[in-house]
Amino acid sequence: MNAAEFRKIGKEMVDYVADYMEGVHKRQVYPDVDPGYLRPLIPDSAPQEPETFEDIMKDVEKIIMPGIASPACTELETVMLDWLGKMINLPEAFLAGKDGEGGGVIQGSASEATLVSLLAARTKVIRQLQDKCPGLTKAAIMDKLVAYASDQSHSSVERAGLIGGVKLKMIPTDDKFSLRGSALQKMLDEDKAAGLIPFFMVATLGTTSCCSFDNLLELGPICNKENIWMHIDAAYAGSAFICPEFRHLLNGVEFADSYNFNPHKWLLVNFDCSAMWVKKRRDLIGAFKLDPLYLHNHSYQVIPFDEMLCPHFQHWQIPLGRRFRSLKMWFVFRMYGVKRLQAYIRKHVKLSHEFESLVQKDPRFEICTEVVLGLVCFRIKGSNELNEALLEKINKTKKIHLVPCHLRDKFVLRLAICSRTVESVHIQHAWQHITELATELLKKENEQKMNQ
Amino acid sequence: MNAAEFRKIGKEMVDYVADYMEGVHKRQVYPDVDPGYLRPLIPDSAPQEPETFEDIMKDVEKIIMPGIASPACTELETVMLDWLGKMINLPEAFLAGKDGEGGGVIQGSASEATLVSLLAARTKVIRQLQDKCPGLTKAAIMDKLVAYASDQSHSSVERAGLIGGVKLKMIPTDDKFSLRGSALQKMLDEDKAAGLIPFFMVATLGTTSCCSFDNLLELGPICNKENIWMHIDAAYAGSAFICPEFRHLLNGVEFADSYNFNPHKWLLVNFDCSAMWVKKRRDLIGAFKLDPLYLHNHSYQVIPFDEMLCPHFQHWQIPLGRRFRSLKMWFVFRMYGVKRLQAYIRKHVKLSHEFESLVQKDPRFEICTEVVLGLVCFRIKGSNELNEALLEKINKTKKIHLVPCHLRDKFVLRLAICSRTVESVHIQHAWQHITELATELLKKENEQKMNQ
Repeated sequence: MNAAEFRKIGKEMVDYVADYMEGVHKRQVYPDVDPGYLRPLIPDSAPQEPETFEDIMKDVEKIIMPGIASPACTELETVMLDWLGKMINLPEAFLAGKDGEGGGVIQGSASEATLVSLLAARTKVIRQLQDKCPGLTKAAIMDKLVAYASDQSHSSVERAGLIGGVKLKMIPTDDKFSLRGSALQKMLDEDKAAGLIPFFMVATLGTTSCCSFDNLLELGPICNKENIWMHIDAAYAGSAFICPEFRHLLNGVEFADSYNFNPHKWLLVNFDCSAMWVKKRRDLIGAFKLDPLYLHNHSYQVIPFDEMLCPHFQHWQIPLGRRFRSLKMWFVFRMYGVKRLQAYIRKHVKLSHEFESLVQKDPRFEICTEVVLGLVCFRIKGSNELNEALLEKINKTKKIHLVPCHLRDKFVLRLAICSRTVESVHIQHAWQHITELATELLKKENEQKMNQ
Repeated sequence: MNAAEFRKIGKEMVDYVADYMEGVHKRQVYPDVDPGYLRPLIPDSAPQEPETFEDIMKDVEKIIMPGIASPACTELETVMLDWLGKMINLPEAFLAGKDGEGGGVIQGSASEATLVSLLAARTKVIRQLQDKCPGLTKAAIMDKLVAYASDQSHSSVERAGLIGGVKLKMIPTDDKFSLRGSALQKMLDEDKAAGLIPFFMVATLGTTSCCSFDNLLELGPICNKENIWMHIDAAYAGSAFICPEFRHLLNGVEFADSYNFNPHKWLLVNFDCSAMWVKKRRDLIGAFKLDPLYLHNHSYQVIPFDEMLCPHFQHWQIPLGRRFRSLKMWFVFRMYGVKRLQAYIRKHVKLSHEFESLVQKDPRFEICTEVVLGLVCFRIKGSNELNEALLEKINKTKKIHLVPCHLRDKFVLRLAICSRTVESVHIQHAWQHITELATELLKKENEQKMNQ
């Protein structure tokens, strides 16, 4: 949507909201729909081609408004998570469908999804162990529980361990910053020998630092064999899996218990919208379910409540209140269509490779890790101090903005392609700007050396 | 704002956003402002009288846009929480000010605020005990930790205990459903004698079931003496404290460590916006702080970072990402002014008393608890079954919607005044509707009795 279309449609939406407010007193206070009313009214997967805003608004009137707010809000979310799951070719077991045991939910952030998974895994293992040995206290078990992630995983994983009150160990990655099965198995063996209870592992697809990928096909079978909940955090990279040529990066998800990525990062859905799926929804619910009378849904419950038809998302997450975030997904998926979303991802990846080529052609610079998606890790061949000085120069000039990282002992610059409107010309300008500043910097450094 | 004004202003806003998008490439990628830039630019408290939308938008250009997004977003939030803190006359210790140790933050929901407080309290007590006895493990301490709330507290409190992995005990309330100091002290004495470690208590102001109030003036000194973190959950009732005549309900907050209420419930700020304050922000940060390089804020950190000037809210909450929710507060507080917000609260309370009088005049009905704010708990004098049947009749007719509760062994109906546009006529209609249905129901019941 360009700015002119946004002006037109935006103003129509303002009128739509005002009309609603002016007529709200004529509406029924509670919908007439039965649980599960929404799914049969909409297609079971996202359209390939774009649809018009007018057509979507007609469906808002026809499909959403009769079930406003809670049934529509919850049911559209379930169906949208199924659409998105199919777009990335998630195994059937993660989808809610009409009678699946899995399903998706929108969380606020990948941090929350990691925490929620860890808590579900913690509850599950505690119950299993207490079933076996009824004398065991929760605290005695928690004292032995240990969770795992790679040394490249996001800080929110460590935080989830902190909040969940369990040990969390960082396992060293290989030379491509990927967590391998052998490294996990080695630590598991040591920990079990020491009397600890491994119960949870986070595998990362597309690490924050350098967009590296943990080896799911090695890690998955180990987790399954050892009764470890495998959660996959693909916060950034996950959007790319809508393209068949990148889907192989998700191979091994079939071994996972939960999977998460953020459409708000790279799929044109506004912040916040973090999509999370579980294979067994009862495991999530088990961790959170409490059921006071004032949270019952009285009229709606005249028909016996069926979690299959309409989940109670309050048991799937930390907060109780919820916003109608699946509307954003519905509009974006239909206004773009799968093909244009794929084209959007491909364009970003193409631009990152364009930047990679520019770096490779300049002998003063080096590429630090394989460029897989929209992130390029690079640096001047030289000291960390030199690269820190370059970063400071770049960010002080404020024409582009880079966020750095450490890869082992190296200070590394990161160019991330992430704007909706980015074009080749921006990449070319960015590189020209960086090399100009680098030339200045290196010249000054050489002069200083000469004067010494 | 009526619908006509909304149409006009809404469309201006659409143009504002479109203009921004069309010109965004000409903007600097990073702001020039120094930490703490925003506070001196705006008044140190909310206006008493309404301001115009035009004046606020001028300030958006002048004050917000130069610091877009992170510094403006964070700094406006700090100042808005100070504004709101002053509106409810919170003790100085909870405000950030220029150099305070306390401060406010926007959470997504009261559930999250309770959980965050419990986690902060847990971290604090574990550190204190490990400092005293360095051999103690975290798990050994957690096994003994016990948190408290009243038997009327919201289910999210029990959930916070579940997530935090600590015991949570519900203390019986008195005949006004209020938690009293003597009941707390009794349970503390028993638990300490049994070797447990009390560390956290949630006091509720305005319980969900019947809007009762725990006795802060009795509970507070006990918590302070016993080294128990007192968190106050005033999710619904908190908005009323902007009126001096209701502020006495908050007396005793000076003993608390953290305080929370939801402006999204009753202060005309859209969902979500849950305001939370702490006396010692370092206690919150201590529970969550992890500090990877990619979360550093490089350009902004050229000036040595000062938590006093601009807090890092990622350490104050569960998710890492944040939205610019303080803008909602800024617009609402200025467009209404404190006086009109007070008038809004007073109108709702007046209407609930109007409904209360109607109930009292009908000898078939009874009021179940004191009407303090906008909630009226009432029932037909008679069996629970009769009241359940009445509720079903009311909610099936779908003219009004009531959510019930249990108070001890009684099934109770709750009329909540919560619409922005509610007027006396709605209250009168609601009561007329309820009594008509009750008459039908009682007539039918009498006929059945006659036929037996």
